[in-house]
Amino acid sequence: MIYTRRIYFYETDGQGVVHHSNYLRIFEEARGEFLRSLGLPYSRLREEGYEVVLLEASCQFKQPIFYDQEVNVEVHLTEMNRYFFSFSYQVFVEGKLKALGKTKHCFVKDGKLVSIPAKLRDLLTCEFHEEN
Amino acid sequence: MIYTRRIYFYETDGQGVVHHSNYLRIFEEARGEFLRSLGLPYSRLREEGYEVVLLEASCQFKQPIFYDQEVNVEVHLTEMNRYFFSFSYQVFVEGKLKALGKTKHCFVKDGKLVSIPAKLRDLLTCEFHEEN
Amino acid sequence: MIYTRRIYFYETDGQGVVHHSNYLRIFEEARGEFLRSLGLPYSRLREEGYEVVLLEASCQFKQPIFYDQEVNVEVHLTEMNRYFFSFSYQVFVEGKLKALGKTKHCFVKDGKLVSIPAKLRDLLTCEFHEEN
Amino acid sequence: MIYTRRIYFYETDGQGVVHHSNYLRIFEEARGEFLRSLGLPYSRLREEGYEVVLLEASCQFKQPIFYDQEVNVEVHLTEMNRYFFSFSYQVFVEGKLKALGKTKHCFVKDGKLVSIPAKLRDLLTCEFHEEN
Repeated sequence: MIYTRRIYFYETDGQGVVHHSNYLRIFEEARGEFLRSLGLPYSRLREEGYEVVLLEASCQFKQPIFYDQEVNVEVHLTEMNRYFFSFSYQVFVEGKLKALGKTKHCFVKDGKLVSIPAKLRDLLTCEFHEEN
Repeated sequence: MIYTRRIYFYETDGQGVVHHSNYLRIFEEARGEFLRSLGLPYSRLREEGYEVVLLEASCQFKQPIFYDQEVNVEVHLTEMNRYFFSFSYQVFVEGKLKALGKTKHCFVKDGKLVSIPAKLRDLLTCEFHEEN
Repeated sequence: MIYTRRIYFYETDGQGVVHHSNYLRIFEEARGEFLRSLGLPYSRLREEGYEVVLLEASCQFKQPIFYDQEVNVEVHLTEMNRYFFSFSYQVFVEGKLKALGKTKHCFVKDGKLVSIPAKLRDLLTCEFHEEN
Repeated sequence: MIYTRRIYFYETDGQGVVHHSNYLRIFEEARGEFLRSLGLPYSRLREEGYEVVLLEASCQFKQPIFYDQEVNVEVHLTEMNRYFFSFSYQVFVEGKLKALGKTKHCFVKDGKLVSIPAKLRDLLTCEFHEEN
């Protein structure tokens, strides 16, 4: 899935580029749209008492991104087992790779680690097989 | 009370100055320290089920503030009745006035407007009389 | 003009609602889209050396806004003279008014207050007359 | 060096914990204080035309961090050559490890990669040898 939006002015910093912390925020938006595209928005999972917890995040910053540029974030599910799932993110502006990211997650319910909700696992499994 | 800290780099924007939205965040920090200085940190009030809700906020931006500058925020309680209380904020850098702010609040418990917790009202009343 | 987008998870705070500082950010997005809708995106004005400076901002928070809700922000130009211009913002979710905002701005070039660029003033004047 | 401060309310998200993107911001604060502790604040380097650019960042989130908790961030210089330098970050609350981070940087002047300013390299070399 590709998530697209323009950069807001408040996302830039005193170097005139998108502040690095905002890449993690854009990744969050992108995986939110990924879940929505599967028909299971995160807000629905939260209504059922699930929280997605971030375990690890990393990003390589290749080139700066500027105000008002349109970013295209390609999101892929890269790993999944009973408890854990990971996404990769490739951030493009006008076809040029600007950044590479990776996040690893699990689900928590009532404060405890739980297996990935069955409904979501089925959807992710399809997605995973289609892609790989 | 005067709340002091340096400006972080991520608070600046592409104009090279503190982004205006961050003034509201610094006001929040300042009134948090104000409550702590009274001996009743907001985290304690939250443990008792209270939430402070912001009803109104405003800010006049007089001069820009830059990275690494030390801001001094003078906080005053300006209004209080059974339900509502307001603060004013004067933001100084090296003695020069940079911004003026105002916020108005109430307390909510179990999703409903409640009167200001008695313990806090007593403390605020003392503060209010001392100042006025 | 009406600016629409969903609330991101990172815009919520420990009260489970959109943090008040983010309203000012959403207003910034909305007036950015307003300028773009006039055919004069802020990024173009910046290329010509202009900066829009925020002089005043205020917001009344009527009801909380939650994660994943779609906000509709109605932006109006409410004042304009040679140097200053103001916008109002009404934030709706599913037709219900959630917040009211106001911002006042001027233009700066090479660090000095300048009159509103003629090109923009013409566009804003049309807009202003159409609306009033 | 250990950098210490309390968590602000606006740093929490709808899960009631510090939003993950803010860890990168706290790391930035911590390395800012690290440079200041060496006698060479980043603001001084910027006056001389240098910018520190972030190339890579990663974080492992071990346990959530809550509003008003005091975080202690232990910063170490872990790598340095002519062009690149890396920091590690260990985030503690009341002695418990909450997160581990890593960032890699270089210097840019007039838009080009330059070697680490000599003055800073000397200071970092001392620090590096003391620690290793």
